Amino acid sequence: MPIEFDHLRVVLVAARNPLNIGAAARAMSNFGFTRLRVVNPYDVAFREARSAVGAPALLANAEEYKSVAEAVADCSLVVGTTAARDRELQHPLQLLPEASILIRQQLASGPVALLFGSEKRGLANEDLSHCHWLLKIPTREEHVSMNLGQAVAICLYELTRELSSARQPEPIALATVGELGRITAVLLETLRASGYLQPQAGAATEEKIRRMIHRLNLSQEDTKLWLGMLRQIVWKLKSDN
Amino acid sequence: MPIEFDHLRVVLVAARNPLNIGAAARAMSNFGFTRLRVVNPYDVAFREARSAVGAPALLANAEEYKSVAEAVADCSLVVGTTAARDRELQHPLQLLPEASILIRQQLASGPVALLFGSEKRGLANEDLSHCHWLLKIPTREEHVSMNLGQAVAICLYELTRELSSARQPEPIALATVGELGRITAVLLETLRASGYLQPQAGAATEEKIRRMIHRLNLSQEDTKLWLGMLRQIVWKLKSDN
Repeated sequence: MPIEFDHLRVVLVAARNPLNIGAAARAMSNFGFTRLRVVNPYDVAFREARSAVGAPALLANAEEYKSVAEAVADCSLVVGTTAARDRELQHPLQLLPEASILIRQQLASGPVALLFGSEKRGLANEDLSHCHWLLKIPTREEHVSMNLGQAVAICLYELTRELSSARQPEPIALATVGELGRITAVLLETLRASGYLQPQAGAATEEKIRRMIHRLNLSQEDTKLWLGMLRQIVWKLKSDN
Repeated sequence: MPIEFDHLRVVLVAARNPLNIGAAARAMSNFGFTRLRVVNPYDVAFREARSAVGAPALLANAEEYKSVAEAVADCSLVVGTTAARDRELQHPLQLLPEASILIRQQLASGPVALLFGSEKRGLANEDLSHCHWLLKIPTREEHVSMNLGQAVAICLYELTRELSSARQPEPIALATVGELGRITAVLLETLRASGYLQPQAGAATEEKIRRMIHRLNLSQEDTKLWLGMLRQIVWKLKSDN
């Protein structure tokens, strides 16, 4: 299912460090999201954040709000991010992989807000009261507090993760069995000419060498390279005798 | 299958910004990894990086190296991270979700290095020549360059994302980078002795051969076999002259 990227609003609440706002903008651009909202940032100069490498327009277009209520007013789903344990919360909690499925479903029909709290304290109870449910990135229990820019990046990566199968790189052309046979033959010739194999070495040895060649996962490109090298070596071995 | 967290080495090559090294350390701590290695950081004061919130010990224990070769010498799998397109690369490329499966399998049997390049340029060709294959975080084609700390965080998130996944096949003991280096050295000697390479063939040719060897996925068993064959061949080539 394609994602409605423009339906997601990344909402940073009371972010203290402009570098983190810039980092969030950059990750949004990396993964194809465009709508950044900031609520009461500590530093009004956040738009100059240099870490928004490659995403200056996104940062310049960030929308500023005075309250969470205003920042999420047009959204049909509001999800807060948290590092807390389930038992400490008054909201349902989803781990990111499952949360991501629910968010993608909702993005198909309308705007979704994904809230991130300040670096020091996360989201306050008042912020959480606007959320339908909470999302947690699974981390080690002994160190749950994540860097804000990294948390945003991981959430956006997970949201677009399933799309990556459509972005698969070109597969590498593997050598055909015929090509592997030619390499095996030349290698055997080389091994005999060098004295590694006795002229009368039997079928078992040949099979061992052939199996080894087949295990290599050679590409067609590499096959040409190997054949070229081996032919030169065997020519040299024979011409010296 | 549980992950052998201590088997992963996160290797930052020529990182320019101490904040990014600190951010990498913090993400490692969030997701349970402990072994950070830095190769030629631009700022020797990187250990003071303040963004390593909650991970001071990890940063203090980071190991410093002068070269990628030394930093990955004990690893049986070396994976480079890249933002490049497949067609621009001379290595096999895996997207992160699939790459993560391969890395987890290998972590079960031995050390794996995950390399990240500098913020400006990523990994250099010389760095890449030590890699078995490359990993790419799937991003929007129009903005592929990620912040270093965010890229590290996303990779580690993905590695731990499915700790309870189905049983994996028995891992094969892959050759260490040190062993691959020995094969490369003997092969280069053979190619020179046979006349395939000119004695003055430059670093680019050596890198090409080294990349080819790293692409082979050689097991430790096969490594012994190859070394034995090549040593006999080079001995014969030299004794005939």
